[in-house]
Amino acid sequence: MQLKQAIIIDEKIGMSTGKMMAQACHASLKAYERASETQQNKWSLKGQKKIILSSGDNELQDLLTRAKHNKLPTYLVKDAGHTELEPGTKTALGIGPAEESKIDKITGELELIK
Amino acid sequence: MQLKQAIIIDEKIGMSTGKMMAQACHASLKAYERASETQQNKWSLKGQKKIILSSGDNELQDLLTRAKHNKLPTYLVKDAGHTELEPGTKTALGIGPAEESKIDKITGELELIK
Repeated sequence: MQLKQAIIIDEKIGMSTGKMMAQACHASLKAYERASETQQNKWSLKGQKKIILSSGDNELQDLLTRAKHNKLPTYLVKDAGHTELEPGTKTALGIGPAEESKIDKITGELELIK
Repeated sequence: MQLKQAIIIDEKIGMSTGKMMAQACHASLKAYERASETQQNKWSLKGQKKIILSSGDNELQDLLTRAKHNKLPTYLVKDAGHTELEPGTKTALGIGPAEESKIDKITGELELIK
């Protein structure tokens, strides 16, 4: 069973590259903390596979709802609004580590960020 | 005492934005895993402050050496070379979570990635 983590970014809200990287790291670490220790360990043993995806407009909340419905570990980053964005702007969503096929059911339509 | 984590990226090796985000997430999570549980918890309670910095040419190894010398938790990401880069290319370095002043002594000259 292959595990992975998906990190989904709302690119269209106009974050700088550094800002996007920071939001991705928040989402990744927080979603990881919400996985079971078993899943954490399995994923770590296999190299912590991560994919970085782009969401559609205002899609992060919907993806979060679907991932939660499937009982996957998730974390939605809302920006504090100190720098580039309005407070509370949804910037990034981490899903997993979890079984790859379960994540693909939710994120399979999204494009990789190049 | 303020804690933070620095994630330093070698931008000049020509990674795509998505690739840089994935490497930043690897560095962040792995360096986090190497911190003590006390530091992990203190940092989490204060919102897991992260800064994303740009290294000079081939500077990641040198920064790693200095951070290790100061007994800070670190992780240097070397790319597996499956996609954009030569195998073993040093792409990103995570330092911390650790005391902000100790990290600044090592990374204070580096520029934030915008």
